Amino acid sequence: MQDVALLTDLYQLTMMQGYYQNGYENKEAVFDLYFRKIPSGGGYVIAAGLEQVVEYIENLRFSSEDMAYLRGLNIFDEGFLNLLKDFRFHGDIDAVPEGTVVFPYEPLVRVKGRILEAQLIETALLNIINFETLIATKASRVVAAAGGGSVMEFGLRRAQGPDAGILGSRAAFIGGCQFTSNVLAGKRYGIPLSGTQAHSWIQCFPDELEAFRAYARTFPDQCLLLVDTYNVLKSGVPNAIKVGLELEAEGHRFLGIRIDSGDLTYLSREARKMLDQAGLEHARIVASNDLDEHTISAIRAQGAAIDSWGVGTHLITSKDTPALGGVYKLSAEGQKGVFEPRLKVSENISKITNPGIKKIVRFYDRRGKAMADLIALEDEHFEEPLTIFDPIETWKRKTLTDFKTRELLRPVFRGGRRVYELPYLKDIQTYAQHECETLWDEVKRLVNPHRYIVDLSPKLFELRQSLLLEISTKIEEEQTKRLSK
Amino acid sequence: MQDVALLTDLYQLTMMQGYYQNGYENKEAVFDLYFRKIPSGGGYVIAAGLEQVVEYIENLRFSSEDMAYLRGLNIFDEGFLNLLKDFRFHGDIDAVPEGTVVFPYEPLVRVKGRILEAQLIETALLNIINFETLIATKASRVVAAAGGGSVMEFGLRRAQGPDAGILGSRAAFIGGCQFTSNVLAGKRYGIPLSGTQAHSWIQCFPDELEAFRAYARTFPDQCLLLVDTYNVLKSGVPNAIKVGLELEAEGHRFLGIRIDSGDLTYLSREARKMLDQAGLEHARIVASNDLDEHTISAIRAQGAAIDSWGVGTHLITSKDTPALGGVYKLSAEGQKGVFEPRLKVSENISKITNPGIKKIVRFYDRRGKAMADLIALEDEHFEEPLTIFDPIETWKRKTLTDFKTRELLRPVFRGGRRVYELPYLKDIQTYAQHECETLWDEVKRLVNPHRYIVDLSPKLFELRQSLLLEISTKIEEEQTKRLSK
Repeated sequence: MQDVALLTDLYQLTMMQGYYQNGYENKEAVFDLYFRKIPSGGGYVIAAGLEQVVEYIENLRFSSEDMAYLRGLNIFDEGFLNLLKDFRFHGDIDAVPEGTVVFPYEPLVRVKGRILEAQLIETALLNIINFETLIATKASRVVAAAGGGSVMEFGLRRAQGPDAGILGSRAAFIGGCQFTSNVLAGKRYGIPLSGTQAHSWIQCFPDELEAFRAYARTFPDQCLLLVDTYNVLKSGVPNAIKVGLELEAEGHRFLGIRIDSGDLTYLSREARKMLDQAGLEHARIVASNDLDEHTISAIRAQGAAIDSWGVGTHLITSKDTPALGGVYKLSAEGQKGVFEPRLKVSENISKITNPGIKKIVRFYDRRGKAMADLIALEDEHFEEPLTIFDPIETWKRKTLTDFKTRELLRPVFRGGRRVYELPYLKDIQTYAQHECETLWDEVKRLVNPHRYIVDLSPKLFELRQSLLLEISTKIEEEQTKRLSK
Repeated sequence: MQDVALLTDLYQLTMMQGYYQNGYENKEAVFDLYFRKIPSGGGYVIAAGLEQVVEYIENLRFSSEDMAYLRGLNIFDEGFLNLLKDFRFHGDIDAVPEGTVVFPYEPLVRVKGRILEAQLIETALLNIINFETLIATKASRVVAAAGGGSVMEFGLRRAQGPDAGILGSRAAFIGGCQFTSNVLAGKRYGIPLSGTQAHSWIQCFPDELEAFRAYARTFPDQCLLLVDTYNVLKSGVPNAIKVGLELEAEGHRFLGIRIDSGDLTYLSREARKMLDQAGLEHARIVASNDLDEHTISAIRAQGAAIDSWGVGTHLITSKDTPALGGVYKLSAEGQKGVFEPRLKVSENISKITNPGIKKIVRFYDRRGKAMADLIALEDEHFEEPLTIFDPIETWKRKTLTDFKTRELLRPVFRGGRRVYELPYLKDIQTYAQHECETLWDEVKRLVNPHRYIVDLSPKLFELRQSLLLEISTKIEEEQTKRLSK
């Protein structure tokens, strides 16, 4: 996260200059970052990316190179460029911790500050949160599909550029993957690495048996052999068993085999039998080959004998839904800390924004299971019994009693200073797992999950309705005036 | 492309140590980087990413930090770590220039060198070429759909991490996009920038008219106004016309409007009429809102009055096909520059590799249209008349006469030294456009395109068949031996 000040859309800078020139330099605003739809047809989302947002904010300054480039564009005036030269983020940021389970319309990040600065950071915040949240969510699905089997992320070669590989690896770990093949991600984030040999290794030796023996000589205690270069059952498994027994005879423990093509259910079951007959019951079977949560689920349902899964393209790109679609919308504007709620109308009801400075409150039942969330105004408190209702299908009501609540947003920056301690990655992974345990299985179903309840508080609902009415009335009046001229 | 040595999969390093420890330190190999399937159901692919590959190779060295990390993993011995410490790439690389039209199974990059080094670079090469080629190809489709209309790429907020935004912007420009919103991509690669204001700008002023006037004051000569914050036809367009006329009265030229929601066909046609009636015939209409090549095509077919297109998520992630799926396969191995062809078998015929050191020859007819490609062995020459045939459906034959040929691979590195001058990005864009012009329209159709002919030379075909037979005979013999024991 170096050289990041220009990681933004040009219109952020043209708007900034516009605010500056029109006397809005000190105007303040609140923006919410949220998504509208859960990816991959799932029932929940795992938030991720906050650590990179923090790094970005802390490194946010325009270098002299940046300044020279902007000046050369000939669209910015010197007064504005001067303001950029000394730019630092001085606003407030609240966010849900990484690993938190979140749902559509809930602000994952809330930015309050001068509109100049809140606007500048929009693009990078979306870029980071959109991607890491997407991959943490996908990983959580893949890991769930794998049951107790471990999942290794090895998508770097298919990732959308180097950062996607590295940040994707991090996000996949948050979502529950246990290993990555990505050495740089291992170095940067301490993610455990895994990896043995490719088909090219096997091809480079006079024959498969010699290739296996060579690998066993170098890594006698981490010997996992790729058995599908020539033929899994006729050649790969028999040769692997031979080498495995040789290793064990020398006092090593043979790790197992990897199958990377063919029918994984059939091949793994046959290979299991062959390994067991040879007395290598402890040898593991690792499977890979264009896997995603649905294929893993189907293969397991057919009784495949697979202990670990290597997942690449589908995970690192979230192939079925390669963008989260998060947005960053103005919810209030003001001056000197006094804010007026703002709302954007749209023909499409799903695109109407929620006005005001908001928080997310999660309601838990006695057993600690999450029952519902309310998006509420910042100063609201809730007491039992509480009746909540769907903001669109308002006849859908539910009364909550005997609940505990938790607010999800946490202060991260105050006046530009960080007030939040970044957790260790391993702790984020554990927290994400705990978060998933608070959800009912119905919400976690891979296909057609039950929709978790996220309602608006009555106060927020009323605010939204009254602003909507106000705006549409105003538009009609203006239109009538125009037509009657 | 700094700190890149660890941008690799762990198994590359474990294999390297294995080669080193098994006396294969000086073994040489040839690898081909190619893809098997054209993304988005298209008929052609635009190669991109070579400049970043060159940067990567030239920056490829292990820092003392990298060395410390690898040592700490406790899987590498000191002899091997010493070899890494002074590691530089000393091999040969040939590649197709960026912007070249390519097809499945054609080597976009060919690496020849010690297997140690050829193996290390696999992951980064795939990562870079896979992504940039994917996006250049998608951009080419979107630009084709837009006809003469210009296309602006503005996907940074939805890109899979910062690099994806920046490299994606570069690749989109190669594919024919004219502008980007991404300021950092503009600075790094000199791509022309574009951008004006967001809905938040409009919402921050007392009303839409005042917001438009404020923008016009700051940017009187680049005034493009976003008209869908409240209501396009009832409010946005009438207010934009008012401000446009005010600008023109002061001697400026009003640029036009942007519509970002609603039915773009209907709204653009109505807006066009309103602008024309007001005497603003020259004002442009820019459209955006979740566009891809198919939506643009459909909207244009219905007579939309749109001059420019802003394309985000679908382009920057190649949403319908978010990975190219390129692979990197061993095709020969040897010693001291003498190579033996190698082949990998597979149950799936599409996964059987092409053995030997190969080149790509493109055959053009008199008018300069591309007729067919041959993947051939490096030392082959072709004379008229030439009969070529499909490597799977071998009865499909075609005789070529009166042709000109061109070889697509160009030397990029020799003995680790760069021998290739990197072209300017703008020239790559022009070259890519020229490349597309050599294709028949049937091959460029967005949906169900005609399949361009890519055959194997007779010599390569025979080599492949004989190696396949050799390997499968050997597997059967070993299996028979095993069973008869």
